[in-house]
Amino acid sequence: MNGKFKTIAATALLASLSFGAYAQSAAERSIQYRQGVMRAQGWHLGNMAAQVKGDKPYNKDDFARSATFVSQLLQMPWDGYGPGTETGAPTKAKAEIWLDSAKFKADGEEASKAAVGLAQAAASGNMDQIKVAFGATAKACKTCHDNFRSK
Amino acid sequence: MNGKFKTIAATALLASLSFGAYAQSAAERSIQYRQGVMRAQGWHLGNMAAQVKGDKPYNKDDFARSATFVSQLLQMPWDGYGPGTETGAPTKAKAEIWLDSAKFKADGEEASKAAVGLAQAAASGNMDQIKVAFGATAKACKTCHDNFRSK
Repeated sequence: MNGKFKTIAATALLASLSFGAYAQSAAERSIQYRQGVMRAQGWHLGNMAAQVKGDKPYNKDDFARSATFVSQLLQMPWDGYGPGTETGAPTKAKAEIWLDSAKFKADGEEASKAAVGLAQAAASGNMDQIKVAFGATAKACKTCHDNFRSK
Repeated sequence: MNGKFKTIAATALLASLSFGAYAQSAAERSIQYRQGVMRAQGWHLGNMAAQVKGDKPYNKDDFARSATFVSQLLQMPWDGYGPGTETGAPTKAKAEIWLDSAKFKADGEEASKAAVGLAQAAASGNMDQIKVAFGATAKACKTCHDNFRSK
């Protein structure tokens, strides 16, 4: 296959994957993108919360895996808040995200930083450190949600 | 604050975050988790496809960022296919996922590997390499979807 054909073949393949996104507006796709990332974060945070609370036996590898994933995921949602994504699909994003984008960015960075700290604590396997780092992450998430997410 | 209080405070904070998941069954949360991860992957694959096709100007950093995110995301959905998550929310997951889990795992690993290759090609900034790696990733995604995802 020559280069041109390869490109066409690859993009045709991709279009055929039907991610459920190709009949949607760009804004709708961005909104559902960021919601998907947030949902994935929430799932892993829930997995860690269950272990911190003792509702589920603590497993170092499983916990560390969730913590690593959350630290990676917390780099991702911000791309989904581009201009023009204030509306276009059901969303709890407040207008303040676009009106005070410096504050939104700062809150997001605070949460990202806390999640990196949680991943480091999780790698240590020390539950005292983990509890502190988990609390800091939950608090950073809540601060950003309180400021920028409708109830 | 003592340790016990910190734990309670952190988990109360987390519960108050209302990820939209706390009134749901475990199966529903797992299904929506894996769908969220897939949606996030699809969004970044779409961003890359637009640049490979030339619908959007190629930007090395932006492309590499999406490729890195996809390589991270492709580690994540598998946790959401645990036992008992065959049903519980609308899902296109085929029963074959649980009936032939070895094949499902192999297809998933193939896609994960392809995405790591794409991230490496993206870091090089060489569009010829990128096209080959992107085609391989799209093909691996399609193979797994054809085998394990209803139309």
